[in-house]
Amino acid sequence: MADGFTDLGFARVDTDRRRRCGFPEVIFGLGKTPEQVAAIARVILKKDPVLLVSRASEAQHEAVLTAFPEAKWHSSARCVTVERPALPKLSGTIAVVCAGTSDLPVAEEAAVTLELFGNHVNRVVDVGVAGIHRLLAVRDQLEAANVVIVIAGMEGALPSAVAGLISKPVIAVPTSIGYGVSFQGVAALLGMLNSCGSGVTVVNIDNGFGAAYAAAQINRLLQPSAP
Amino acid sequence: MADGFTDLGFARVDTDRRRRCGFPEVIFGLGKTPEQVAAIARVILKKDPVLLVSRASEAQHEAVLTAFPEAKWHSSARCVTVERPALPKLSGTIAVVCAGTSDLPVAEEAAVTLELFGNHVNRVVDVGVAGIHRLLAVRDQLEAANVVIVIAGMEGALPSAVAGLISKPVIAVPTSIGYGVSFQGVAALLGMLNSCGSGVTVVNIDNGFGAAYAAAQINRLLQPSAP
Amino acid sequence: MADGFTDLGFARVDTDRRRRCGFPEVIFGLGKTPEQVAAIARVILKKDPVLLVSRASEAQHEAVLTAFPEAKWHSSARCVTVERPALPKLSGTIAVVCAGTSDLPVAEEAAVTLELFGNHVNRVVDVGVAGIHRLLAVRDQLEAANVVIVIAGMEGALPSAVAGLISKPVIAVPTSIGYGVSFQGVAALLGMLNSCGSGVTVVNIDNGFGAAYAAAQINRLLQPSAP
Amino acid sequence: MADGFTDLGFARVDTDRRRRCGFPEVIFGLGKTPEQVAAIARVILKKDPVLLVSRASEAQHEAVLTAFPEAKWHSSARCVTVERPALPKLSGTIAVVCAGTSDLPVAEEAAVTLELFGNHVNRVVDVGVAGIHRLLAVRDQLEAANVVIVIAGMEGALPSAVAGLISKPVIAVPTSIGYGVSFQGVAALLGMLNSCGSGVTVVNIDNGFGAAYAAAQINRLLQPSAP
Amino acid sequence: MADGFTDLGFARVDTDRRRRCGFPEVIFGLGKTPEQVAAIARVILKKDPVLLVSRASEAQHEAVLTAFPEAKWHSSARCVTVERPALPKLSGTIAVVCAGTSDLPVAEEAAVTLELFGNHVNRVVDVGVAGIHRLLAVRDQLEAANVVIVIAGMEGALPSAVAGLISKPVIAVPTSIGYGVSFQGVAALLGMLNSCGSGVTVVNIDNGFGAAYAAAQINRLLQPSAP
Amino acid sequence: MADGFTDLGFARVDTDRRRRCGFPEVIFGLGKTPEQVAAIARVILKKDPVLLVSRASEAQHEAVLTAFPEAKWHSSARCVTVERPALPKLSGTIAVVCAGTSDLPVAEEAAVTLELFGNHVNRVVDVGVAGIHRLLAVRDQLEAANVVIVIAGMEGALPSAVAGLISKPVIAVPTSIGYGVSFQGVAALLGMLNSCGSGVTVVNIDNGFGAAYAAAQINRLLQPSAP
Amino acid sequence: MADGFTDLGFARVDTDRRRRCGFPEVIFGLGKTPEQVAAIARVILKKDPVLLVSRASEAQHEAVLTAFPEAKWHSSARCVTVERPALPKLSGTIAVVCAGTSDLPVAEEAAVTLELFGNHVNRVVDVGVAGIHRLLAVRDQLEAANVVIVIAGMEGALPSAVAGLISKPVIAVPTSIGYGVSFQGVAALLGMLNSCGSGVTVVNIDNGFGAAYAAAQINRLLQPSAP
Amino acid sequence: MADGFTDLGFARVDTDRRRRCGFPEVIFGLGKTPEQVAAIARVILKKDPVLLVSRASEAQHEAVLTAFPEAKWHSSARCVTVERPALPKLSGTIAVVCAGTSDLPVAEEAAVTLELFGNHVNRVVDVGVAGIHRLLAVRDQLEAANVVIVIAGMEGALPSAVAGLISKPVIAVPTSIGYGVSFQGVAALLGMLNSCGSGVTVVNIDNGFGAAYAAAQINRLLQPSAP
Repeated sequence: MADGFTDLGFARVDTDRRRRCGFPEVIFGLGKTPEQVAAIARVILKKDPVLLVSRASEAQHEAVLTAFPEAKWHSSARCVTVERPALPKLSGTIAVVCAGTSDLPVAEEAAVTLELFGNHVNRVVDVGVAGIHRLLAVRDQLEAANVVIVIAGMEGALPSAVAGLISKPVIAVPTSIGYGVSFQGVAALLGMLNSCGSGVTVVNIDNGFGAAYAAAQINRLLQPSAP
Repeated sequence: MADGFTDLGFARVDTDRRRRCGFPEVIFGLGKTPEQVAAIARVILKKDPVLLVSRASEAQHEAVLTAFPEAKWHSSARCVTVERPALPKLSGTIAVVCAGTSDLPVAEEAAVTLELFGNHVNRVVDVGVAGIHRLLAVRDQLEAANVVIVIAGMEGALPSAVAGLISKPVIAVPTSIGYGVSFQGVAALLGMLNSCGSGVTVVNIDNGFGAAYAAAQINRLLQPSAP
Repeated sequence: MADGFTDLGFARVDTDRRRRCGFPEVIFGLGKTPEQVAAIARVILKKDPVLLVSRASEAQHEAVLTAFPEAKWHSSARCVTVERPALPKLSGTIAVVCAGTSDLPVAEEAAVTLELFGNHVNRVVDVGVAGIHRLLAVRDQLEAANVVIVIAGMEGALPSAVAGLISKPVIAVPTSIGYGVSFQGVAALLGMLNSCGSGVTVVNIDNGFGAAYAAAQINRLLQPSAP
Repeated sequence: MADGFTDLGFARVDTDRRRRCGFPEVIFGLGKTPEQVAAIARVILKKDPVLLVSRASEAQHEAVLTAFPEAKWHSSARCVTVERPALPKLSGTIAVVCAGTSDLPVAEEAAVTLELFGNHVNRVVDVGVAGIHRLLAVRDQLEAANVVIVIAGMEGALPSAVAGLISKPVIAVPTSIGYGVSFQGVAALLGMLNSCGSGVTVVNIDNGFGAAYAAAQINRLLQPSAP
Repeated sequence: MADGFTDLGFARVDTDRRRRCGFPEVIFGLGKTPEQVAAIARVILKKDPVLLVSRASEAQHEAVLTAFPEAKWHSSARCVTVERPALPKLSGTIAVVCAGTSDLPVAEEAAVTLELFGNHVNRVVDVGVAGIHRLLAVRDQLEAANVVIVIAGMEGALPSAVAGLISKPVIAVPTSIGYGVSFQGVAALLGMLNSCGSGVTVVNIDNGFGAAYAAAQINRLLQPSAP
Repeated sequence: MADGFTDLGFARVDTDRRRRCGFPEVIFGLGKTPEQVAAIARVILKKDPVLLVSRASEAQHEAVLTAFPEAKWHSSARCVTVERPALPKLSGTIAVVCAGTSDLPVAEEAAVTLELFGNHVNRVVDVGVAGIHRLLAVRDQLEAANVVIVIAGMEGALPSAVAGLISKPVIAVPTSIGYGVSFQGVAALLGMLNSCGSGVTVVNIDNGFGAAYAAAQINRLLQPSAP
Repeated sequence: MADGFTDLGFARVDTDRRRRCGFPEVIFGLGKTPEQVAAIARVILKKDPVLLVSRASEAQHEAVLTAFPEAKWHSSARCVTVERPALPKLSGTIAVVCAGTSDLPVAEEAAVTLELFGNHVNRVVDVGVAGIHRLLAVRDQLEAANVVIVIAGMEGALPSAVAGLISKPVIAVPTSIGYGVSFQGVAALLGMLNSCGSGVTVVNIDNGFGAAYAAAQINRLLQPSAP
Repeated sequence: MADGFTDLGFARVDTDRRRRCGFPEVIFGLGKTPEQVAAIARVILKKDPVLLVSRASEAQHEAVLTAFPEAKWHSSARCVTVERPALPKLSGTIAVVCAGTSDLPVAEEAAVTLELFGNHVNRVVDVGVAGIHRLLAVRDQLEAANVVIVIAGMEGALPSAVAGLISKPVIAVPTSIGYGVSFQGVAALLGMLNSCGSGVTVVNIDNGFGAAYAAAQINRLLQPSAP
């Protein structure tokens, strides 16, 4: 660990990450065996109090559970979390907004990540532009947040509308919800990258984790104790 | 002409079109020489009172002008029209709405086509979703129209918002306005095809003519004298 | 419901939709749990007499059935409908035309939607351009309709041929039927958007519902009682 | 030349080609200097009576003209040909059909190639599917040909319609005519590759030469003197 | 049947096809129920002696078998054929060449189609360009055929090499064999459309049937009794 | 202006924007005539002290200059700015980092935007990953900023490396620098959206303005006077 | 075998390959039946001491096992190998580096191939650019190798960083690890082809075998006994 | 320069590159002003004897010429080189092979790069697969080289054929030569990445420099004095 990482043979766990980047290393579950995930988890939790496995499987959860009985499975978000103990709660709120009911799993991935990192989350669901009065009704809630994560599939129009209503940073997450030329989220992604709403930034399709991480970075800067 | 067309060697002009389809043949200017356009114009105007050349060049306009001094050049819409005389005006209005100032040339192509075919046009400009109050302010104007053509580039979100506000048919036209991953209008097109606003139908990028033609077909059905 | 929607936590049901847009809210089944669908259905049917769930699963049908024993499952169209009672029948006919037998499920989605909204439907099947005499034989049936929905996969050529034969609005629906470079309907979609037949408008791949909704909007305008 | 080619340093001219493939080597003009084209032309015409430079520029024509005063410039087809003397005429006809006037340059490239190789050509222009009666009127002409080359841009629907009317081989050429999602001919290409008309084969966009070459191969097989 | 087709409700069977196009109607199995296939088969076999169902399933075969005990299942080619009796054999041979062993199913679809239509087939397997001596060893066999169908996946280079060796028409079929950026056959298709071998024509990915149909059309022209 | 906008016929200028979103309306120059830009500028500067025209032309600058002699032309950034007077300077710094010298114009667009909105900018140029020691040498400068904008073309790898070194929000801007399969910036965009560096958010290709706007939103939140 | 191949009907096994290319023929398992693989294996092992089946299935392994009991199954690499006996070991080392744990299967395919061909392999795992200190820590190991194979998914940035640190040839392998706009490895591939690190060459997505083959060719050249 | 780079404000010139990577820093001309190129050249030539500017313009050449009168302009390759003095010549040869005359500019970029780095180059032009005897005639020349760079546009089939004939490493360069679905070199690139010829590695479209750099790395390893 002298070099800032632990070499497990199949993984070099970045044990220096929290010092450099502010948050502990996170495990990207996709393509890893349950045993690999559990072994990496052990290295991380030796140094850090909390753990997140994103894009996890239930088998990975079970492997982690063996070592850490407090490991929690978030089925909709497909995440495993361990808190021993939880990080202290930060002030301020992050709004996690989604256009439709079908976007909920991505919203949950964002919310689980945010909460693990100590943030308060305000979930706002099903305010897509096809019934714009639903969005206008929550405008003040969104403006009250420090950062707003906007999640939408299909044409991905919601971030443009939100960005035009409020002054807070908007991070857009396209989802793979749709069919035909939604191209598993590509149409929504393009819509968001071309947003006429100034200042919208975008992450990969279904990447609720990435949006949450970016929002958490901003929110941490806003804490009285920020570096 | 016995067969319903006139063979000019380089073109078989469809002289039977108005009987079958309700509107006279229209010349698609792209890739035709000025002489070819003028010759086809002569055949059409022998049978029909009005002529439209879409995607026209000024040279094509000049060639038509030689034969028909009343030929008009619409520079923003890149159209040539001839009315000898104009068709009778129809009742009702078509709204031509565009998201931004840069979409105006496509809106003009639609408006020129609609007016040549006898329709009243209500132009509504620059009501994109980034300032949604501008759209809400014209909601009643749009509901008052028989058909609403909605034109937008970039993320193409406007048709979804419009379709959610009114009960009239919405025909969406993506424009090539944008840069980067707007892909010359493809992003807007995908946004419109994936619209969460029910009943939005779509035409090709920058195809103001096609949207106008479809709207004119609907408006004609609404006339007391409709077939 | 004061705000024009009912907030179920996982959905904000748009209870104001029929007033604004003329038709009651429709449930897009994809990505929703059966319980979510049933709960939304209860909110909608409290205000509106009819319900449509598109892109539905049998499990969603069963969940709706528990609350509404009259809920019908349309297996080919993958739709759930409830009529308590049916809407009054409108005058005029919508033709639903498809190029091949394999396009029938999309045609059924369109027909089910149209019928739920009170329209008479004339189904015309398997008149693709490879045997053009089959299309010419039904030309008069198509001209007799108020709107013609044309459904085709593979190269999507049928709408161009239809639009050149009749004077009524043509709404084209590409289907995912094909293989290789049909790209699950993209080739058909491109064919339709590039149609040399004037006035063809297009909806997303396999979106029989969207085409039907647009056709229903037009047909409603044609009713003596239209707003 | 002992090895079946002549090495000019910048080109290895295939002097054995006519023996193997039946037709003399053809020069693809794109990306070659006028001097390179002229030098290659000299090698070819030492062995073969006729020469074709496709995708040629006027400068290339002038360079060839210096050495071969009979060199002809086909401006619409962008071809240079030399006949010293012409090849003997073959029996039978090849039909070169195009959907619209704007497709003529590609049709000319095909016709120039066919005629240089000794074929009779029947040019049939502007019979696109938007006015299907124009195509039906020439059905017998097409059936009378040995091979039918069908050229179309936009949605590329014409080959399907032709293939359904006649029994002769149909070779389809997509053109780059169109705009928006025609994608410079890709939409037409996809339409043709997905053709519901059995037996349609396809060449690259704007490749009139390639279609003509394939048709000439077939027609040569049909000659009494065929190998 | 007076109109040249039989309307089964779910299909309009083109009973006039052999008269117009020379070959009986073929059933495209994809997306049809076994019952639909069997019913269409009955209509076709009432007028024509042979039947082909391409892209068929075993269930479709069983449904046809009930009505026609002589129905044969070609498992590798995924085709059903019925011969009652077989068509007369034509003179001449069609070569069906494939680049690798993995391309065999597509080659079989081509061969089954050709043989049903009365052609002699010469199968030549595994002569890809990575071992060019294997191709050179069969050069004379290929030149001896009337038409050569060349089938290849991955980079699709074989048709170019074949076209440079012989004088007969080459019809290229890309296959979906490959991985990564083979994009299920798109790379091979592009390779073939861009072939530097003159006169190569191309059909859709995995479309052995289409290539065979085109080859059969050419071979029929070469028969002494050709129209 | 009672409705929050001023209708100029060709534009509805959003005069309410600063109240809602914190920054005055910005003019997107692309596709607007110089006269339109100047007229919109007049409306904006009536209410707000500063003006930005992005994607501007020199002709647009000259038109603005006529009305506002203090209008400045930023040739590399293609921006027009007017400050009457400048906004007060904010505390903290935004780092604008670019991978190569060729990315400078996009960096300038970002810097001009940031400075107009009152931010201190630290420009860090040419620290691409091919010479990683150059990046490590500036690590402390980047950590010292409140937000880091990272601009890169070609493979777009720099944001991943930066995000792994620091704890501050990273906003990535792909540029169109490159050739071949850079696809005018698409490769860089994909690289950034797939970044293994957690929390990287992304804007459209060459969208220095958008990244700057988002960074300015964050920096404003960090001011003692933030809302 | 006189012609340099053995014709099995379904395969022409290239028995001349080792003489021409230095390595024995390898079997590409995809799309071949177990029986075909076993039969080809018998032909190869008659002439060559070692055998590799890449992209193999367990059923193919079992078929080979029947004939060759020493056949080994590499489950992660999906390869079958036979050594009777092993080839002599070469001097020098090939480094096989991968960005993340999830890239291990592709790394194993490369390592198995290299070892079968007699090379020493140094596996270096999980040194992605998000924690660049992990890469710097192994810099000397990489420089000590004769060739470095770099394997990465997601944004594929690792080869650029490696190429900037060492003087040895870098062969990059994109993997299909990722989601959303990783497009199954296309983003990584584009990143590698656009690498700002000079001299990086690239193979197909997940093509560990191809990279290993190229590395083995280079390493063989470096042997004292090289041709 | 203590940090291994020289900061010019607009560029951080990597003065440590030769030590790490074996070759001096190279200037990528695209998007740089002549002044920037000249200034960077001065820094590089202070430490290294030779300079290469790739993707250069004549204006950049002139700017370099002012400072270094020996600067040479390679017009076809679009490169500037300076040798003061030339590097010592290495033993062995690199073959630079191209499929057609039109690929020569890319071949020249490769050759200029190789020669500047001290390599002997054997240029072999116009041996595309459409006349395979031309390739077979040079087989021994290619086997005699240490590395073979194969350059081709259109379908990019040549590397597969070359790789199947020789035992030396093959580096493939797709070129943008072609039209239609060559997609400016994408088809050739895909062909090469899917090559059935084992061990072919690939660089970006038109990247003669990159292929040369990789070949030079390999050739340097083969020198008696290699590290």
